[in-house]
Amino acid sequence: MAWSRLTEPEHKGVGELIRALGAQAALRHLLEGRTEWGERLTPRLELLDLDRDASLLRRIRARVVIPGDDEWPSGLDDLADPPHCLWVRGPMNLGEACERSVSVVGARSATVYGTTTAADLAAGLCERGFTVVSGAAFGIDAAAHRGALSVEGATVAVLAGGVERPYPAAHQHLLAQIAEVGLVVSEVPPGSAPTRHRFLSRNRVIATATQGTVVVEAGLRSGSLSTANKALVHHRVVAAVPGPVTSMVSAGCHQYIREKGAILVTDAAEAAEAVGSIGRDLAPEKRGPDRAEDVLDEAEARVLSSLPVRNAVGVGTLAVQTTMGERELVACLGRLEIRGLALRDGDRWRKQRRRSRGGAA
Amino acid sequence: MAWSRLTEPEHKGVGELIRALGAQAALRHLLEGRTEWGERLTPRLELLDLDRDASLLRRIRARVVIPGDDEWPSGLDDLADPPHCLWVRGPMNLGEACERSVSVVGARSATVYGTTTAADLAAGLCERGFTVVSGAAFGIDAAAHRGALSVEGATVAVLAGGVERPYPAAHQHLLAQIAEVGLVVSEVPPGSAPTRHRFLSRNRVIATATQGTVVVEAGLRSGSLSTANKALVHHRVVAAVPGPVTSMVSAGCHQYIREKGAILVTDAAEAAEAVGSIGRDLAPEKRGPDRAEDVLDEAEARVLSSLPVRNAVGVGTLAVQTTMGERELVACLGRLEIRGLALRDGDRWRKQRRRSRGGAA
Repeated sequence: MAWSRLTEPEHKGVGELIRALGAQAALRHLLEGRTEWGERLTPRLELLDLDRDASLLRRIRARVVIPGDDEWPSGLDDLADPPHCLWVRGPMNLGEACERSVSVVGARSATVYGTTTAADLAAGLCERGFTVVSGAAFGIDAAAHRGALSVEGATVAVLAGGVERPYPAAHQHLLAQIAEVGLVVSEVPPGSAPTRHRFLSRNRVIATATQGTVVVEAGLRSGSLSTANKALVHHRVVAAVPGPVTSMVSAGCHQYIREKGAILVTDAAEAAEAVGSIGRDLAPEKRGPDRAEDVLDEAEARVLSSLPVRNAVGVGTLAVQTTMGERELVACLGRLEIRGLALRDGDRWRKQRRRSRGGAA
Repeated sequence: MAWSRLTEPEHKGVGELIRALGAQAALRHLLEGRTEWGERLTPRLELLDLDRDASLLRRIRARVVIPGDDEWPSGLDDLADPPHCLWVRGPMNLGEACERSVSVVGARSATVYGTTTAADLAAGLCERGFTVVSGAAFGIDAAAHRGALSVEGATVAVLAGGVERPYPAAHQHLLAQIAEVGLVVSEVPPGSAPTRHRFLSRNRVIATATQGTVVVEAGLRSGSLSTANKALVHHRVVAAVPGPVTSMVSAGCHQYIREKGAILVTDAAEAAEAVGSIGRDLAPEKRGPDRAEDVLDEAEARVLSSLPVRNAVGVGTLAVQTTMGERELVACLGRLEIRGLALRDGDRWRKQRRRSRGGAA
C-alpha cells in the first residue's frame, strides 16, 4: 500500500528492489537512503500517511488486495512489474472473478454498431460463465460493462485513477452500479488522477488479469490496441470483431487480424471458444438453412437443375440436357417427385415451385 | 467444339477418354460405339451440326478457344476436367487477360455496402493492372464488373449458359458492354441455358483461370463460396472482405476467414498484395495520424501526462506526481515547451491545449 502511494506503476528501480528483497525490506532499504533513485520519492514520502489511508478505505468502502492474497488475480503474476497492490471496491472475490474472464475493450469513439456488438458479446460471455473485464471508458468499454450488467453477469472495471473517483465523470452512475454488484479496481491509490502513463499501465492489468482480450472496435492506433498488444506479449488470446471496411474504428481490428494473428470472432460463442478452455467452450458450427437439394445425389441434382419451372418437358428433352439414360432419368424423376421437388404433368415434367430464398449462385 | 456440344461440363468418362486419346481420337472412339456411356450421347449426337455452329459464331461475333491456343488461360490446365473449349466474345486476348487476374465474387442478395465495396475493390485492382473476372450475376458479381468498367479496366464475365444469351436477362446491357471492351466467356455452347450444374462447373473456371478469389459478401452456404472452395482446392489465394457481424451476407466471409484461412482484405491494395506477386504488390502499411506525443521519450511523456490543462502547477507538485528529480523535470518541461506541448505561466506549468482527436484510451 505504501509503495502504491510512493511510486508510479511500472517503476523499474522499485520493481527490481521488491523482487530482490520483498516489499517490506525494500521499504526499509528506501527509508535508510540506500537507493540511487530514492531521493526522488522524498516529496511523496513526506505526504505518506497510512493511518489516513486506512480510514479512507473504510469511508469509501474499499479494500486493498496484495500479491499472494486469496483475492489476488493469479494472471498478474506474469507481469515483470505487477501492481504493488490493488484498491478494490465491490462484493465479488476478485481472484475468483478473474479465473474465467475476458476483457472486452475498444474505441471510445465507437459507433452504434460497435457498442451494440460489445453489449451483446459481453452479455453472451457472462451467460457462458465469464467475467467481463474492461476499463469503464466511453464507447466500447461502457457498452461491455452495461451488457454484462443487463444479464446480471459478473463485471470488473479497472480504472487508471483512484477507485473512488468516477472517470469519466459521466460514468459515475455506471461505476456505482458496478461497485454495487461487481468490482471496481485500480492499482493507483484513491485521489490519483488518470494520466496517460497510468492508462497504459492500467491496460497491462486488464490484459493479464484475464485469459483473453476481445477488441470490438479500434482505430489504427487506439489505446485499446495497447491492451491487445500487452495481452499478446503475455501469451493471452487476442480476438477482434470485424466490421465494415469503410469504418475507421474497425480498421484497427482488421489490421490486428491481418498482421498480428488475432482471431476473428463474430459472437459470444466464438469469443468463448477463442478464450475459453479447449473442449469446454466449442462454438456451434455456423450453418445456413437446410435445403431439400442438399440430400440429392449427383444424378438427381442434375435432373432437378434441368427441369424448367414453367413449360414441362418430356423425358427425351431431359435426356439431351442431362446426357443420362431414359431408365435412370425416370427413376430420378420418381424420387424427385416423392421429395416434392418435381411435378408430373401427363408424360411431361417440371420443377415444383418453392418460395425463393436468395443466396445461392 | 463437338465435345462441348455433346457433353455436360466435367463428364468423367469423356474427360478420361480425352486425356487418354486426345479430343479428336476420342471422338472417333465414341462414333465407333466403343464407349460404355456413348449411347447416352446419341440424342445430342443427332443434333450436332458443326457447320451451323461455324456460321453461328460469325453471327454472334464469337470465337472458340481450345487448350493449347495462345488465348487459352494456362490456369485451366490445373483442372482434372478442364473445359473442352471456351466460347469467347470480346476484343481482349483471354490468355493475356488472365495472366494477372483476380476473381471478385459474392452473394446475389448483396447489400449496398457489399456492392459499393466490390466496385471499389474491382476498380482498384484494375488500376493495379489486374483483370477482374466474375460471373455477371446480380449483386457482387455485377458490381465488380461495373467497378472495372468505371476505370476502363479489363474485365471478363464467365457465364454458366451460352455467351450470346444474357443471364440474368436484366444484365443484357452490362454483358453487351463487357463484350464490347472486355470478354464474355463460357464453356457451354450458344443456346445452352444456365443450370445449377453448369453454375457449379462455371465456378471452377472462374476459380482456376485467375490467381486468386476475393469473396466480398457471402451467406453461410452461398454459391460464391463454391468458387472459393474450388480456388482453395487448386491452391489459389482466397481472400474475403469482412463486414458487420450482424449482416447475414458477411457471415460466409467471416466463417471463411475463421475456418479456411482466407486472408482478410479491406481494400484493393490488400487484395493485390494477397493475390499478386511477392515483392511487386505490397500493400502500404495502414497508419493512424501522427501525434506530437509519439516522438517524446518516456520521461517527457510522463511529465506531459501530469500537466493539468487548466490550473498550472509548480515544479514541486510535478515532482510528487512524476517521481522525477527537479533538474530532470525542468529540462523536460523546456523540451516540451519548444515542441509546443507545455505552456509556462510564471513559475508554473500547464498543458498546451490542442484540438481533440478522440480514439486513444
